[in-house]
Amino acid sequence: MHKIDAEAIENIAVGAALLGTGGGGDPYIGKMMALSAVNEYGPVRVISPEEVDEEAVYTPAASMGAPSIMIEKMPKGDEFVRVFQKLEKYLGKEIKGVFPIEAGGVNSMIPIIVAAQLNLPLVDCDGMGRAFPELQMVTFHLNGISSTPMAITDEKGNIGIIETIDNVWAERLARTATVEMGARALISNCPCTGKEVKQASIHNVVSLSENIGRIIRSKELETQEKFNQLLEITGGFDLFNGKITDVQRNIEAGFNRGKMVIEGLKNDTGEQVEIYFQNENLIALKNGEPIALTPDLICLVDQETLAPVTTESLKYGKRVRVLSLPSASQWRTNIGIETVGPRYFGYEYEYTPVEDLVKNGACV
Amino acid sequence: MHKIDAEAIENIAVGAALLGTGGGGDPYIGKMMALSAVNEYGPVRVISPEEVDEEAVYTPAASMGAPSIMIEKMPKGDEFVRVFQKLEKYLGKEIKGVFPIEAGGVNSMIPIIVAAQLNLPLVDCDGMGRAFPELQMVTFHLNGISSTPMAITDEKGNIGIIETIDNVWAERLARTATVEMGARALISNCPCTGKEVKQASIHNVVSLSENIGRIIRSKELETQEKFNQLLEITGGFDLFNGKITDVQRNIEAGFNRGKMVIEGLKNDTGEQVEIYFQNENLIALKNGEPIALTPDLICLVDQETLAPVTTESLKYGKRVRVLSLPSASQWRTNIGIETVGPRYFGYEYEYTPVEDLVKNGACV
Repeated sequence: MHKIDAEAIENIAVGAALLGTGGGGDPYIGKMMALSAVNEYGPVRVISPEEVDEEAVYTPAASMGAPSIMIEKMPKGDEFVRVFQKLEKYLGKEIKGVFPIEAGGVNSMIPIIVAAQLNLPLVDCDGMGRAFPELQMVTFHLNGISSTPMAITDEKGNIGIIETIDNVWAERLARTATVEMGARALISNCPCTGKEVKQASIHNVVSLSENIGRIIRSKELETQEKFNQLLEITGGFDLFNGKITDVQRNIEAGFNRGKMVIEGLKNDTGEQVEIYFQNENLIALKNGEPIALTPDLICLVDQETLAPVTTESLKYGKRVRVLSLPSASQWRTNIGIETVGPRYFGYEYEYTPVEDLVKNGACV
Repeated sequence: MHKIDAEAIENIAVGAALLGTGGGGDPYIGKMMALSAVNEYGPVRVISPEEVDEEAVYTPAASMGAPSIMIEKMPKGDEFVRVFQKLEKYLGKEIKGVFPIEAGGVNSMIPIIVAAQLNLPLVDCDGMGRAFPELQMVTFHLNGISSTPMAITDEKGNIGIIETIDNVWAERLARTATVEMGARALISNCPCTGKEVKQASIHNVVSLSENIGRIIRSKELETQEKFNQLLEITGGFDLFNGKITDVQRNIEAGFNRGKMVIEGLKNDTGEQVEIYFQNENLIALKNGEPIALTPDLICLVDQETLAPVTTESLKYGKRVRVLSLPSASQWRTNIGIETVGPRYFGYEYEYTPVEDLVKNGACV
């Protein structure tokens, strides 16, 4: 993939929504904005993390806050570029390219909008290989790279620059600003040299998203064929197949938090899966036992179309398949587990890789 | 007054605490920091607002948040200059002088610290002529001057730059940052040209503070003589004389909020005054009827020493005199009353100047 055109955007939006594990925002809104940007400014050039200029500066562009809000509080359109350029001016250095901070319906699209509007290359990488709810949950953090200076803005035009003593403080201050700005804000953070991008990012996530999206959107393949190919290219596992019977959620401190219950379609088996989420799906339990744990990806797709299901579109009666993809190896280190493992989110489970849980019978 | 030396600091700390109407922080801590700065760097040069360079930039340096916190969370010492210089760098223009944003124990002292450490002149003015609890409550706001760009920092070293679409948004975003930073932060905001300082500031507040402090601290004068001189130089009124019998307060959203009851010393008269405060004293009622209303100043002083009483040092049994000083004429306009009048703070009283209330019998 050398250019992102309209067709690539359609694929990336779907694929990134899957990797977004329920978070990362509604793919529809993000996609429409990116399509409109590419339509106006032309396709976006993609470069591999291997091709970056090691001395130059690259930054993510992203949305922060509860994705639910985006449905009601539409972006104005100029905020993506405004926040990016504000950071550039503050750094006093030209930013040579943009990349997604995470995979997700909205956050895979915003860098495309910025790249198109500013005629910058998009680097084929991200900082998570999935989506996570907090700023410090990036592989850059694991590599000692600061989240700040960062810029933050809202659709009204308010702007903040934040520089903190550590990445947890960046999360705290940006989160309270996001909440005050109306529970959603645009950010550009974590300025990296090309060398840091090469070393610390997760490579080829944009391409992977596009490939996933192409499979899900295929008109030639049958549902089960698509599903098998998905598992194949992601190394994922088929965990459960059922109907959502309960969803509890609330928006607190700028997050969508909650829990869903999925019951097996053959009710007589009595099997059920509970999934806990904070923007993203974090923990899946089957009959009370863990079958997938953060940082491994827990993804829901529509049973028929395999369209990724975001946490804000969960509803009673929806039939879904639950799959889990192994997380990037950087997350499976001690500092990775400390940063995004089950205990960080308040769940008293020891992280066990999904492939080990599957060996012990977690799979369908 | 051409220089602020140790003696002037002692006087200003006391006088500004009186004008601080209960808010503006504990005068002791602020004073100690200023004395130490002047001791290390030498006396601070004071210039009149008439002497500023009309084209140059001048900014306040201040503390934001609940003053109570300052007693437990001591400043580190470098944050006053750090935030000021951060704003200067962000503006890309040399700041030629500093001034207090308000009168108050702490906020009259911080500009002295910055002026001493950076060898800058202190402009003899402020933005309130008293203290008020919110950022947009400055005469600069009434004159259409923006609170931002502003810089904010904490004692840990976290820094924010805020640029907003209006001054109420500046207050909202800076307030949430202040709360997250631990309910107290240092700011430098409202950058003004010299011309704006001349036109929009309240002139000679530093000198007035010093004169008030000199009277209160005088060793020659008797208490009643001091009191009479105070009323004379401020145009103030003697409203009540009594004993604090109840104090209700809580820290919420970064403010000290509460209410006190003062009973007349001759209990048989049954007279009592209630004063409502939000950092600063805002409303005084005598037997349920208003005797002084924001923006006019409601000041408490110790019955014997005439030392100003801050809201954080209120306690049962303390004997106090309540006086009220007419606010600056800029506050008594329609936009002034809209910004800081009783209704803004949620009290359903029509603003009436204290001199009119006194005519109707509010005085002792």
